[in-house]
Amino acid sequence: MASSVLYHSNSSYEVTMPLLQNRFQFLNPNAKSDPLFSSHAAGSVRVLLCVGNSTVNSETLDKYPSLECVVGSSTGLNHIDLIECRRRGIRVTNAGDAFADDVADYAVGLLIDTLRRVSAADRFVRAGSWPVKGEFPLGYKVWGKRVGIVGMGSIGRRISKRLQAFNCSIAYNSRKPKPNIPFPFYANIQDLASNVDVLMVCCTLTNETHHIINRDAMKALGKEGIIVNVGRGALIDEKEMVELLVKGELGGAGLDVFENEPCVPRELYALDNVVLSPHRGGAVLETLVRLQEIMIANIEAFFANKPLLTEIEME
Amino acid sequence: MASSVLYHSNSSYEVTMPLLQNRFQFLNPNAKSDPLFSSHAAGSVRVLLCVGNSTVNSETLDKYPSLECVVGSSTGLNHIDLIECRRRGIRVTNAGDAFADDVADYAVGLLIDTLRRVSAADRFVRAGSWPVKGEFPLGYKVWGKRVGIVGMGSIGRRISKRLQAFNCSIAYNSRKPKPNIPFPFYANIQDLASNVDVLMVCCTLTNETHHIINRDAMKALGKEGIIVNVGRGALIDEKEMVELLVKGELGGAGLDVFENEPCVPRELYALDNVVLSPHRGGAVLETLVRLQEIMIANIEAFFANKPLLTEIEME
Repeated sequence: MASSVLYHSNSSYEVTMPLLQNRFQFLNPNAKSDPLFSSHAAGSVRVLLCVGNSTVNSETLDKYPSLECVVGSSTGLNHIDLIECRRRGIRVTNAGDAFADDVADYAVGLLIDTLRRVSAADRFVRAGSWPVKGEFPLGYKVWGKRVGIVGMGSIGRRISKRLQAFNCSIAYNSRKPKPNIPFPFYANIQDLASNVDVLMVCCTLTNETHHIINRDAMKALGKEGIIVNVGRGALIDEKEMVELLVKGELGGAGLDVFENEPCVPRELYALDNVVLSPHRGGAVLETLVRLQEIMIANIEAFFANKPLLTEIEME
Repeated sequence: MASSVLYHSNSSYEVTMPLLQNRFQFLNPNAKSDPLFSSHAAGSVRVLLCVGNSTVNSETLDKYPSLECVVGSSTGLNHIDLIECRRRGIRVTNAGDAFADDVADYAVGLLIDTLRRVSAADRFVRAGSWPVKGEFPLGYKVWGKRVGIVGMGSIGRRISKRLQAFNCSIAYNSRKPKPNIPFPFYANIQDLASNVDVLMVCCTLTNETHHIINRDAMKALGKEGIIVNVGRGALIDEKEMVELLVKGELGGAGLDVFENEPCVPRELYALDNVVLSPHRGGAVLETLVRLQEIMIANIEAFFANKPLLTEIEME
């Protein structure tokens, strides 16, 4: 009995259900008709399947005394208290590189959209303004831009590859210089920001990277500078960013993530030099199918005492 | 006296004026205060500087009996009656490759936007729907798509280069196979459409290419197929396209150009799988500066009896 999987989700997509139900003792507290779930059943949970960014903290962990493994569905795991998991000897897996290509594609899309004002132009047409107001304002060149990648991991490397095809020059910041990366490394974000036209933010959110893009970095980027964020909202000091954007001291922003999702600062609604996206970087049908495979493979490996596919290292 | 340049424009951007006024006997019929312009002055015009897509037809040409050269500001010249120009021995220049990189960047932006629903997602956030309605629908993968380029010229080649960085496979259609292009060639548009997920339309509009994307081609592309058009509106049978999009028999479209610009079919306003752009493919500040240089260099070359920089071949 003590070998069940608990579905722990705040996502409206229940893509994993049918496949999981056929393979494991599967508990879903959200399905009210599920006869298996009770406080008694909680004692049997060995794997927590965490879909979306549903919080996993001490309180969550206390409920499941037999818990040994948290299987996550995202690349970033800032919603899971990893220190507490390590303390309790609970292993954690993430989505691995499943989303990396899609997030990189999306990041490039947000950059082109922000520089060339694609979404704003689309609003202009749909409002019927074209025949009335005439030409929509000019945008800015993508080709040849100097781009700083903040976080040269699986997503950062993929963004670099794509932007080189647009003749962009690449520089980067990460905890330390990466082997086999041919681009200039900047240990300091402000230095990086001073030397580029665009910052692409795609690092992991940790205590060290919280507000890594602060007011000084944004001032260094300058009033024609562009920020694209496909990492996590709290990588940027959002309050400062909004103020700089409103004052015209920052050139524009393509934002897929926000500090207080799903709440987006209202001041941004009025701006045509920002693109506001509801955390859709990895939201691709084909990829969710692949993600299911990874999550199921992790659960199967766990019960078979085999190495987990995408276990994260606890430092 | 018979060596003046006439400004013939329907664009709100008068970027070329100051530089031109200092260099040539420059006539601007739009500037009411211009004392030089009169029907007498028209007889002195040897060069017509055609900014935007202002029509140049027999009637226009009749006004300027000394005209020898039309300097265009765009890549496509379907607004200029080239047959009539040839008949009268009038030479014509275009923008050359000035816009090619920007249009290619924009085309890729429209493709990502259409597949990943970026503009629709931005509308969703600005409408305040994210906290209320929850997750925005999934998009479709860009990475690895099979892309058909319609017109493998200066823009088509640049689009191919960029999309290879997204692991897209490329095939193409043009009047005849191009040397040094490594991608599969399809002589027939319908065959090309049957074998790809996306058609990128970027050929020149001529009598032969008018409605080259007809109903049969769109049906062959299929209900998950995407069209991006950065060429000219009349390359697509727009009425048929709108009908297929509304019925869900075509997957989506990223459209920078329309048959009856600036009028856009109203039925498209309601669709989230289309991106509507007001002919902004080349509308980039830095590029207009370069375009001025090309136009001025053409005018100078003309008056100096030197070869024109970007003279088009009249077939």
